Amino acid sequence: MIRVRLPDGAVKEVTKGTTPMDIASSISEGLARNVLSASYNEQTIEAVTPLEEDGDLVLYTWNDDGGKKAFWHSTAHVLAQVLEEQYPGIKLTIGPAIGQGFYYDIDPSSHTVTEKDFPVIEKRMLEVARELHRFEIRKVSKKDALAYYTQEENPFKIELIQNLVDGDITFCDHADFTDLCRGGHLPHTGFIKAVKLTNIAGAYWRGDEKNPQLTRIYGVSFPKQKLLKEHLELLEEAKKRDHRKLGAEMDLFTFSKKVGQGLPLWLPKGAALRERLEQFLKEAQRKAGYEQVVSPHIGHKELYMTSGHYEKYGADSFQPIKTPSEDEEFLLKPMNCPHHCEIYSARNWSYRDLPKRYAEFGTVYRYEQSGELHGLTRVRGFTQDDAHIFCTPDQLDDEFKSVIDLVLYVFGSLGFDNFTAQVSIRDPEHPEKYIGNVDEWEKAELAIMNAAKEKGLNYVVETGEAAFYGPKLDFMVKDAIGRSWQLGTIQVDYSLPERFELTYKGSDNEQHRPVMIHRAPFGSLERFVAILIEHTAGNFPLWLTPNQVNILCVSVKYEKYAKKVSQLLENNEIRSLVDNRNETIGKKIRESELQKFPYMIIVGEKEATDSLISVREHGGKDHGAMPLNEFVSMVEDTIEQDLKEFKP
Amino acid sequence: MIRVRLPDGAVKEVTKGTTPMDIASSISEGLARNVLSASYNEQTIEAVTPLEEDGDLVLYTWNDDGGKKAFWHSTAHVLAQVLEEQYPGIKLTIGPAIGQGFYYDIDPSSHTVTEKDFPVIEKRMLEVARELHRFEIRKVSKKDALAYYTQEENPFKIELIQNLVDGDITFCDHADFTDLCRGGHLPHTGFIKAVKLTNIAGAYWRGDEKNPQLTRIYGVSFPKQKLLKEHLELLEEAKKRDHRKLGAEMDLFTFSKKVGQGLPLWLPKGAALRERLEQFLKEAQRKAGYEQVVSPHIGHKELYMTSGHYEKYGADSFQPIKTPSEDEEFLLKPMNCPHHCEIYSARNWSYRDLPKRYAEFGTVYRYEQSGELHGLTRVRGFTQDDAHIFCTPDQLDDEFKSVIDLVLYVFGSLGFDNFTAQVSIRDPEHPEKYIGNVDEWEKAELAIMNAAKEKGLNYVVETGEAAFYGPKLDFMVKDAIGRSWQLGTIQVDYSLPERFELTYKGSDNEQHRPVMIHRAPFGSLERFVAILIEHTAGNFPLWLTPNQVNILCVSVKYEKYAKKVSQLLENNEIRSLVDNRNETIGKKIRESELQKFPYMIIVGEKEATDSLISVREHGGKDHGAMPLNEFVSMVEDTIEQDLKEFKP
Repeated sequence: MIRVRLPDGAVKEVTKGTTPMDIASSISEGLARNVLSASYNEQTIEAVTPLEEDGDLVLYTWNDDGGKKAFWHSTAHVLAQVLEEQYPGIKLTIGPAIGQGFYYDIDPSSHTVTEKDFPVIEKRMLEVARELHRFEIRKVSKKDALAYYTQEENPFKIELIQNLVDGDITFCDHADFTDLCRGGHLPHTGFIKAVKLTNIAGAYWRGDEKNPQLTRIYGVSFPKQKLLKEHLELLEEAKKRDHRKLGAEMDLFTFSKKVGQGLPLWLPKGAALRERLEQFLKEAQRKAGYEQVVSPHIGHKELYMTSGHYEKYGADSFQPIKTPSEDEEFLLKPMNCPHHCEIYSARNWSYRDLPKRYAEFGTVYRYEQSGELHGLTRVRGFTQDDAHIFCTPDQLDDEFKSVIDLVLYVFGSLGFDNFTAQVSIRDPEHPEKYIGNVDEWEKAELAIMNAAKEKGLNYVVETGEAAFYGPKLDFMVKDAIGRSWQLGTIQVDYSLPERFELTYKGSDNEQHRPVMIHRAPFGSLERFVAILIEHTAGNFPLWLTPNQVNILCVSVKYEKYAKKVSQLLENNEIRSLVDNRNETIGKKIRESELQKFPYMIIVGEKEATDSLISVREHGGKDHGAMPLNEFVSMVEDTIEQDLKEFKP
Repeated sequence: MIRVRLPDGAVKEVTKGTTPMDIASSISEGLARNVLSASYNEQTIEAVTPLEEDGDLVLYTWNDDGGKKAFWHSTAHVLAQVLEEQYPGIKLTIGPAIGQGFYYDIDPSSHTVTEKDFPVIEKRMLEVARELHRFEIRKVSKKDALAYYTQEENPFKIELIQNLVDGDITFCDHADFTDLCRGGHLPHTGFIKAVKLTNIAGAYWRGDEKNPQLTRIYGVSFPKQKLLKEHLELLEEAKKRDHRKLGAEMDLFTFSKKVGQGLPLWLPKGAALRERLEQFLKEAQRKAGYEQVVSPHIGHKELYMTSGHYEKYGADSFQPIKTPSEDEEFLLKPMNCPHHCEIYSARNWSYRDLPKRYAEFGTVYRYEQSGELHGLTRVRGFTQDDAHIFCTPDQLDDEFKSVIDLVLYVFGSLGFDNFTAQVSIRDPEHPEKYIGNVDEWEKAELAIMNAAKEKGLNYVVETGEAAFYGPKLDFMVKDAIGRSWQLGTIQVDYSLPERFELTYKGSDNEQHRPVMIHRAPFGSLERFVAILIEHTAGNFPLWLTPNQVNILCVSVKYEKYAKKVSQLLENNEIRSLVDNRNETIGKKIRESELQKFPYMIIVGEKEATDSLISVREHGGKDHGAMPLNEFVSMVEDTIEQDLKEFKP
């Protein structure tokens, strides 16, 4: 008998060789029908793998990332099978599950596969799926594995096998198809009810441009046709909301080849949006006792030797900037923390002065390969809404809670209501991987978990996921179309205070090391704006939107009245534009809708005579004619609903 | 007979060989007594140089830079003479006049000169001066000049002579002293009535650290003892106001060796000051129709090849930043204009869209040798209050006037009431030195001069001082202790629109080049803050000062009331701190005075009971007890006096 513990803590005593599927069946038949895969003692296994020792079992269904992973990886096997069948002589390489679906990289040999071939391949994949083939994992010796692929004339698999340890090598068979594979499959192909191949692209073997180019075929699959339909609709919706498309249409930002890839240029409307985000957070931070500082965008190499960044990231970063004489070397700032440590260092502190909270909208530069760049979400230069809190270990608890309050305030004001959190703590079995003493770590981890609990966060704890320098809390938000984004991070750091020899004088008159907290509610302004555009489809919260009102003149005659209205709105801090072009009012309304102005004000004969304005809302709602002050109240009420005052 | 024209346009017909001094005598004896030197046809000459051809004569007295230059350069000769006398065997190198005084670089041979020796040297210099030695310039052949210094065993002078053209070489004699010299001296040593040696320092021969180190002795001299006294008092006052000293005392900024020399770190109070300056200018610029943009701090090398900056400054700048792969090269941004050109380029424009006014507080980086760095006035990274206006040639006139209005508004709001302007135009005799066509230049120059005249500026026109790309207007302000600073510049640019191929569609439906205006009222925030600190001795205008009020508790008992007062002030946008330390009120008042708080509020028993506050002004004025709202009005009135609303 062995003891199998389930995630809810329940322990089942079962005979050796019992499978996860057997255990699912013992719980409920419904569960058994839905189990796709499992993990045992944190190792991915098949639902049909016999359990041979005591351990922790997690059963995965479609609702778990683990379940989707097994589903998509299994579909990659089916794809590979069909490709081999349809294109004899191709060489298989690897076929993993990815965030949304899977891919398989093949060396196409003499064949050319194009998107036109997708329907035929998809059809055949579904035929194979319906044949209910089991995925069977079997151990193979290194010798036999090499022999198999030598006979297959597949140098890629041979290279993979050569890097594996004899005894750890497994093949997976289904139908008459065999692949080198570590495991993590569905019980059988019949689960796959819908398949869509989505894209074809070139990819280098092992991601190295010096290696041969392969053909990568992307796809996604589902246990129900309906889920595929929803997925395709989501993709369609995501495309409409793509921040690169909307950002260009709304004149928010642009890129220039001459300035450089991945280096956004913020156009006036985008810069105004950024500025408003900055001022919004600055105001909240001021109330929470932060102080703004300003530091340069470069630092002497010595600064990053001290911080440890140079050793860790130097080779993969923008290379050092040399000086024409004096032989100095500077680095583009990849992060603001070393500079803030030097600001802290500029004078002596007593425990009575702490916490010090230094905030800076600091622009940092990190090298990314051009192929990795993507709109504002993956750039080479971005502005962090950064702050570093230097506090005593006793203050960590309160500081952490205050930071959570601030992050929640930011999310709430920007319409992100759906979020979860992850607390990353150290692996207590590997203390050598972390800096700082165990007592302090325990205290910090407890502080974070207490804070998360007290603030009512929906959080998971991930053991072993902490950085070497301290535990952390990350926020994941769900956007309006259900996609998850990592936003906002709070990290405890024991390392930098040590490396920069930061001190404060304690009440015992001795020098102590402060603890440091890194935190950024937005993360980066660039990425945040991108996510906000995709979340709101460009319909920003009213308080934030570049132009809140478009004033449309029925004819040029009413321009003067329109300008007066605009000025009166400005006096009430409402941002408006006047459209006095010689166009029909119908056209002006249609264009305003497209440009996503929250409100349109129409001024013509009647309005000018009666000193009224006619108000329409984005989306079509017509509020009719009203006095200006009524409209001002309407706007103010809407803003007040979204944007509460921050009360730390 | 020759014709000599004076600056007022008067022409004198005199015999060949007449000297400037003769002409001065013919005007008035007073003038003749005060003439120190002259220029003829823009060449510096002696007051006693015979005039041999027609030309333009300017007579220099102590009130002219040219007169001071001759005065100080002549004193350097006397210094050299005395040094040779006192330290036999030293080698002379060069001894020019500088901004405030002069220096002489010597190779001290076996001697050591220290500041302790200054009184003896000064005394002897004045003895020589009183002997009324004439400075006599004589031509020497290259051969004779080399022979003289070979016999003197002076390799420095030999090196200098080797680089001179035979026929152009002159020596200057006075008393029994001879020096290689181009000219520009006083008539005789007797003018020198006061001498002060100010400093001694090391300097490399020809400024190159690979060359031998020399000893540089700095000094200054005057035609009256009283002027020296005033000068020393000014130095003393300047020392007290030194922004490096006050900046540290007031916790505004700091430097860190690890971050790098010349890269300021702005501490919270300094960052808040900067932010207020930025917001102040942003608000005025918004009203003047500027739009903020944001661009990165690096740019691809190609950007600066296009702009021409790489060719011109590349070798002396921070060197290119290479990437770890893809072999790209970026440069730290030395100026914002190329980025703004690319922003303009991002779409098509019609003449109806212009002018576009792109503004950015853009941080730029320029390499300066470490020896050149000085506090915030000479740094390696600084933030320009930059903007670029893209307009049609017809709009240049109005745009230029608007920019002047803005600059004058900035100066007025910050207490710089004493300023002059310089209009720099092209040299019409050398059209090949300039880009753009003559008609446009003429139009632009006229536009600038008209604007300057219409705005009532006190300006001079300097022919030939324009940049190759366009004419400009620079502002010089005088600070509270009479020193001049260059602040604020407005430049027309025909070159960048050409290089970046910028266009707009004119009313003729053809593509045209816009004209560009570069402008920065502050110049750089760093330098401006430095000047403002020295101008105000740290007593910033009330609207700008970091903390306007220090609330002093008579005892800790009144902390609660003090905090309430502070909160009420904050509600009225008045920035205050509470000093609740357990110190005597006398000590707190003294410290507040030192820290330059504009107001102190004292709260004790009486104030708390009667809901009043006692108010003291910086400098000692006691306003007595008053209700809070009375104080608020007082502060608001003061601010309104300094900071008017900008009405473009």
